[in-house]
Amino acid sequence: MDILLEKLFTTESMRAVFSTRSRIQRMLDFEAALARVQAECGVIPPSAAKCIESCCVAESYDAPALAAAATAGGNLAIPLVTALSAQVAERNVGAAGYVHWGATSQDVIDTALVLQLRDAFDLIERQLAKLAHAAAALAGAQRFTAMAGRTLLQQALPVTLGLKAATWLDAMTRHQERLRETKRRSLALQFGGAAGTLASLGDSGPEVAAALARELDLSLPDLPWHSQRDRLAEVAMTLGLIVGTAGKIARDLSLMMQTEIGEAFEPSAPEKGGSSTLPHKRNPISCCVTLAAATRVPALATTMLAIMVQEHERGLGGWHAEWDTLPEIVLLTAGALAQMTSALSALEVNPTRMGINLDVTQGLLMAEAVVMALAPKLGREPARRLLEQSCRKATAAGLPLRAILSAESKITDLLSVQELDLLLEPSHYLGSADRFITAALQRHSSQD
Amino acid sequence: MDILLEKLFTTESMRAVFSTRSRIQRMLDFEAALARVQAECGVIPPSAAKCIESCCVAESYDAPALAAAATAGGNLAIPLVTALSAQVAERNVGAAGYVHWGATSQDVIDTALVLQLRDAFDLIERQLAKLAHAAAALAGAQRFTAMAGRTLLQQALPVTLGLKAATWLDAMTRHQERLRETKRRSLALQFGGAAGTLASLGDSGPEVAAALARELDLSLPDLPWHSQRDRLAEVAMTLGLIVGTAGKIARDLSLMMQTEIGEAFEPSAPEKGGSSTLPHKRNPISCCVTLAAATRVPALATTMLAIMVQEHERGLGGWHAEWDTLPEIVLLTAGALAQMTSALSALEVNPTRMGINLDVTQGLLMAEAVVMALAPKLGREPARRLLEQSCRKATAAGLPLRAILSAESKITDLLSVQELDLLLEPSHYLGSADRFITAALQRHSSQD
Amino acid sequence: MDILLEKLFTTESMRAVFSTRSRIQRMLDFEAALARVQAECGVIPPSAAKCIESCCVAESYDAPALAAAATAGGNLAIPLVTALSAQVAERNVGAAGYVHWGATSQDVIDTALVLQLRDAFDLIERQLAKLAHAAAALAGAQRFTAMAGRTLLQQALPVTLGLKAATWLDAMTRHQERLRETKRRSLALQFGGAAGTLASLGDSGPEVAAALARELDLSLPDLPWHSQRDRLAEVAMTLGLIVGTAGKIARDLSLMMQTEIGEAFEPSAPEKGGSSTLPHKRNPISCCVTLAAATRVPALATTMLAIMVQEHERGLGGWHAEWDTLPEIVLLTAGALAQMTSALSALEVNPTRMGINLDVTQGLLMAEAVVMALAPKLGREPARRLLEQSCRKATAAGLPLRAILSAESKITDLLSVQELDLLLEPSHYLGSADRFITAALQRHSSQD
Amino acid sequence: MDILLEKLFTTESMRAVFSTRSRIQRMLDFEAALARVQAECGVIPPSAAKCIESCCVAESYDAPALAAAATAGGNLAIPLVTALSAQVAERNVGAAGYVHWGATSQDVIDTALVLQLRDAFDLIERQLAKLAHAAAALAGAQRFTAMAGRTLLQQALPVTLGLKAATWLDAMTRHQERLRETKRRSLALQFGGAAGTLASLGDSGPEVAAALARELDLSLPDLPWHSQRDRLAEVAMTLGLIVGTAGKIARDLSLMMQTEIGEAFEPSAPEKGGSSTLPHKRNPISCCVTLAAATRVPALATTMLAIMVQEHERGLGGWHAEWDTLPEIVLLTAGALAQMTSALSALEVNPTRMGINLDVTQGLLMAEAVVMALAPKLGREPARRLLEQSCRKATAAGLPLRAILSAESKITDLLSVQELDLLLEPSHYLGSADRFITAALQRHSSQD
Repeated sequence: MDILLEKLFTTESMRAVFSTRSRIQRMLDFEAALARVQAECGVIPPSAAKCIESCCVAESYDAPALAAAATAGGNLAIPLVTALSAQVAERNVGAAGYVHWGATSQDVIDTALVLQLRDAFDLIERQLAKLAHAAAALAGAQRFTAMAGRTLLQQALPVTLGLKAATWLDAMTRHQERLRETKRRSLALQFGGAAGTLASLGDSGPEVAAALARELDLSLPDLPWHSQRDRLAEVAMTLGLIVGTAGKIARDLSLMMQTEIGEAFEPSAPEKGGSSTLPHKRNPISCCVTLAAATRVPALATTMLAIMVQEHERGLGGWHAEWDTLPEIVLLTAGALAQMTSALSALEVNPTRMGINLDVTQGLLMAEAVVMALAPKLGREPARRLLEQSCRKATAAGLPLRAILSAESKITDLLSVQELDLLLEPSHYLGSADRFITAALQRHSSQD
Repeated sequence: MDILLEKLFTTESMRAVFSTRSRIQRMLDFEAALARVQAECGVIPPSAAKCIESCCVAESYDAPALAAAATAGGNLAIPLVTALSAQVAERNVGAAGYVHWGATSQDVIDTALVLQLRDAFDLIERQLAKLAHAAAALAGAQRFTAMAGRTLLQQALPVTLGLKAATWLDAMTRHQERLRETKRRSLALQFGGAAGTLASLGDSGPEVAAALARELDLSLPDLPWHSQRDRLAEVAMTLGLIVGTAGKIARDLSLMMQTEIGEAFEPSAPEKGGSSTLPHKRNPISCCVTLAAATRVPALATTMLAIMVQEHERGLGGWHAEWDTLPEIVLLTAGALAQMTSALSALEVNPTRMGINLDVTQGLLMAEAVVMALAPKLGREPARRLLEQSCRKATAAGLPLRAILSAESKITDLLSVQELDLLLEPSHYLGSADRFITAALQRHSSQD
Repeated sequence: MDILLEKLFTTESMRAVFSTRSRIQRMLDFEAALARVQAECGVIPPSAAKCIESCCVAESYDAPALAAAATAGGNLAIPLVTALSAQVAERNVGAAGYVHWGATSQDVIDTALVLQLRDAFDLIERQLAKLAHAAAALAGAQRFTAMAGRTLLQQALPVTLGLKAATWLDAMTRHQERLRETKRRSLALQFGGAAGTLASLGDSGPEVAAALARELDLSLPDLPWHSQRDRLAEVAMTLGLIVGTAGKIARDLSLMMQTEIGEAFEPSAPEKGGSSTLPHKRNPISCCVTLAAATRVPALATTMLAIMVQEHERGLGGWHAEWDTLPEIVLLTAGALAQMTSALSALEVNPTRMGINLDVTQGLLMAEAVVMALAPKLGREPARRLLEQSCRKATAAGLPLRAILSAESKITDLLSVQELDLLLEPSHYLGSADRFITAALQRHSSQD
Repeated sequence: MDILLEKLFTTESMRAVFSTRSRIQRMLDFEAALARVQAECGVIPPSAAKCIESCCVAESYDAPALAAAATAGGNLAIPLVTALSAQVAERNVGAAGYVHWGATSQDVIDTALVLQLRDAFDLIERQLAKLAHAAAALAGAQRFTAMAGRTLLQQALPVTLGLKAATWLDAMTRHQERLRETKRRSLALQFGGAAGTLASLGDSGPEVAAALARELDLSLPDLPWHSQRDRLAEVAMTLGLIVGTAGKIARDLSLMMQTEIGEAFEPSAPEKGGSSTLPHKRNPISCCVTLAAATRVPALATTMLAIMVQEHERGLGGWHAEWDTLPEIVLLTAGALAQMTSALSALEVNPTRMGINLDVTQGLLMAEAVVMALAPKLGREPARRLLEQSCRKATAAGLPLRAILSAESKITDLLSVQELDLLLEPSHYLGSADRFITAALQRHSSQD
């Protein structure tokens, strides 16, 4: 993510999780913990471990030099281990030999990534909870706010804004569940040595691995997963699903914000959403950023599936393709969630415009209500055809549907004027919207 | 999937789940169940329900005519409901009006798809279990079969074929868990009516929905999910992960099958794997089919993420993009699992060639073992550099590493000839491979 | 593509190009032509060639049997060559030995695909020309039809429907150029024998290849391209670009068709666009189908890029992944072009609604016109800020911008009432729209 | 692209093209050129233009502040124009009003990107030429170096390394052609004002646009292309094709570099390709980086296709999704080309190992040669079956094919010992490899 764009597309806290410093520090955290537990297990001298640990401070390392040196060996771990060993050697020559003991580059790089992901999950869990909360609040507050339901971008039947928010909430509740499952499976230590056998540790491999997992507070996998990338690919999948819902919300909001629709608006802030040339515009910036994420993440997630086909004990190129891809997905997810939370939390709702829009078809929108009222008497198909004809007449004449229906004897024979008026009132034709909202809110509450 | 290719790329049983007939029958199953439960709930007359049910037999419908008629309304449900109504009308004019009562096209299309997915999950669960079983059997049987571990396609250290199979198994065990979670979340009824409010059913919407879910043995969602597609996208994600692992196994096998490597082979059958022009070839057809699936599914899965950004109460194009995409993913998954199960179940293993290949570097492969033995005495970096030099010398001279090492006083000062010989024996440097295999097998057993 | 869906998502003529029969016939066309030219070159006996040719009729082959047999060798060519040889042998035992002489499976499968692509290109070129023509006609006819220009889904400034159509046309003109280039590069013979050397033909390889290319009216490549798939991937890229523009048109149309916007409509036909439950709806089915294609094709195109990384002289899985993917892209392209041509050719335009929508902001839309008029006098930024304030006032008060501006002395000092009225008239602020349309139309005409 | 990884995955020169400074400077270049030509056209005062131009120096702007300010308006142009206006105002208050005159954010952002792409194309053209040159040199030098041709990772028939390089070259030659076409089409000015009509420039829009295109040395499009993104998507497609071929080369090289194959090696450099734990390893780092690019670019390219479906006169999210995606594709392309050029230019070839590998099947590889020699006498199918049997016998007995064939009377009746020996010699069965190489080299030469 370009430095000039990261403020727009992600959050500062998530940016910090994947900063240059964090990436280095998380690798050093692995090396320090490794030394510590190996000292405990009697694999390396405690004094060496102390010295190694004292050198594991990201600020002591020259990031551009590491980046440049990474080109030779093809990854960051090689030059970092070299640099760490050099620093250790300055303080304690003997200790330098115990740096990175028994580990391979992928152990440190993968575990460092998992540590970053743990921080990321913490942030995303909180973000998801906030977004769910905002959707729940909206569902409750707008429970009875009638608006046009739209299918294939055509008005279909009345719904409520509360119901729309409840469907967003409903997805979010599932995402919270998915995230918990994914977190549990994916936050696993990587530690296998050069070919995944921990051969260099002799018999003490499993003991060191278990201690290392405890020390880093990660789960201990049954075996190393150097070339089994399903854990990381699953992270991408779950975040992809989350961003998909964020994008869905953004799509809905931006359609409601259209100049001609004007039913709801992202909150405005000074300068927010202004145009460089059009003084009156109120651009849906939060939707824009979220839709950009929802456009990008599916493709990035594909890469995480494609890379699963790795060769033997360490993949050639597939592993390397993850390094920029997975963090980018996480950054975009954080950005999208932040934007939608900000949008929903202070959404400006215009129920008047919703009412006006509900009447824009002059009653055509309510045709199904009349069909269903007539169907028990006429049969469903005849009723449907009768209304279809009436709708066409109303459209052709530019008249309200009510005018056509009340002039049609086939209808007036069966329905009184009062019954017809009631049938044509949107707020009387909301079906189970209220009960659906309640169900979604209850599920949401039970999650906490 | 082209008819000429489906036998190659999927299984017959999965093909049956997504056949033309099944697609139609599953929609009719929805309509029949709907009529049944609506009669029970007193929404439509029992006689109408009986008549509707009696017409819900796929064979009575003209598939090409339905396909042609779908172009007008943009989906298959519209012409099917019309055709069903016509058949019902022939038997009972009054009943025809109760066909599809209160439902919308998406209710029948989505629920029919979910019913197909249920059948598909049954097949895939069984396939996954078989593939896991085959991997477990291989892990057990080849527990001590040493072979070269390879990282970045270079020999790294010895591993065992059992360990390799255990890493495949390990991923499969996680997939079984994921599939259970996904199944639980995704097999949900779709029933919301035109805009997701069930307005056309008045107050009886939730009651009918609950009865319909029971009748179809699907879970009852808190609310309709017409434009919240995370359930279906999750199916694609989970299958994508599974295919990724199948592709990884295929990659490993096909690399082992290389003419020059010759360590393991897909089982051969008469005519299987033959070439049209090269009589001696033994092509890795199962790997080929699986790798094709692993190349295609990530992209298809992207589509299922991209379609989540749907408009309002029903998406425009996004919903429609699912219809060919999700079945294709399922078909390819079944094909990949079947191929890899067939390959692993009767894998021809050549331990002799594995041994020969382990010696191809004339001992260079064992350098780490020597490094680790020297490291406590020399320090890790000096030991590593010493071996690096020795390896270069051995390579330059075309001599076994043993020859160089035993002529190097820095080494002979610290290691006896016997110690050196032991260090250079691959089967003595397998680390925790055995314990890792045991852990994977135990987890596998505990899953059953 | 599912048989039940192909009528909706593609055209009959394109479906015919990729039918089961065509796929088989095109392979047989290769075999027949090969025999013919090899007889001419003296490589095989003329009588054998005659006999082979006489057996190359798709109808004589059992497609399901071929499909089933393809599972053994992993491709369709092997069983087809076997079946062809058997038919030839029945008529002339000696001739059977000359079937497929010197060729490999990939030669026949790839060349058959190229022959299908040639037919497909012919169709798509004609479709593109028709769609370009429809866009050009619309650009001309609606040259002066003012409507709101919208950026980020907010009204920005007036444009014309003609200009919008001209931008569609502009892209189409580039696509026509791209298609010509791609066609020239991609319609190349594949003929290399088992490893791309034509070794089995001794010295006569190039001569036979040249004659075969002439016979099939394909270009003769410098060398076989068995594992260099850029030609086919380019086809996917170019079609992907075309579908992208079709999707853009569909997006624009469907947004204009929104119930609340109502500016333009896909032509209606009896039953077309109807809803199963909502009698009044007029669904944008053509847009729907096109947007589904535009959602699916990018992902399918990815696969065609991903498959380029093929192994050595023939890819393992990559080649096989093309077989369903590329035809699917072509089918979807044809469907999208047909739908958009049908939509544009008979687009129902509602200029009255465009005018009403242009006034929905009560003049805010025209703010830039006033900014630009004031800028030379006040400076651009002060002018912009002044109008921004005025727009806010107008919005807050619910008044037309004209009312605010004519009460603002900073403005009335500089602009007369008449000047202000002129500035607020959308059709006076269309800039170079007319000249842009002319340029696009001229370029279009010069293409023919 | 993460700062820690960019040295590994791209080149310094390409990194410079897309640096923070360049992104800002290219936007300022647009503003300066706009002011200049507007002064020439009499649209703004020459003194204002001079002042604006003097402030268009990237170093004077605070990148982090711009990045932060971009969050309000949703793009970088808004804060940059504000900052530029402020700097201009300090020198000449009156001139500030003429900054960005008549332009919209997208004009400056898109044109700046096009200017960066022009620089990128220059680099990539040179890189492509170098890589083509390296492949051509290899094709020439290794024209007669026989090696095993491999299909589906199985040895098929002999080829030469020269032929393999010629097929790489062949694709590269097409890429050079494609790049010229794409360059011509894509390096176009973007200039349309707020809604693509240049309304704010009154009648002088086209004149200013033409002058601006000349000034920036870009082509003048027929009309603005704000929401017609085919030009940029085409760039992604063409680069995707190029990276695909680079990945194909990397795949081939890395397979040849396998420890057990050892036929060719990336050049080694001190520390290059070393492992952190395995002293003897020689990792294919260049292949690794290239394969990572070839894994990532297809997915990134999809995004560029998906974003084409933009709304009306400016897309919501689609446009924004391009900003990180297209530069990432370009950066990865440059990295892949550089790595493959470095690998091919100094490829270490081991013809001895190629010879040994050619003999690994003990003659099975040459079976087709015998089939083709026998076919005119026995018929192709009988000959093929005979050899298939012989190959099986040889495999079962662990004997050379020669031994089996020379003991088979059906063969010795037709072929003498000398004939058989000749048929079994790989270098005598290279078919038209030599002529194919010549053709590819001639085409390459004619390109220069």
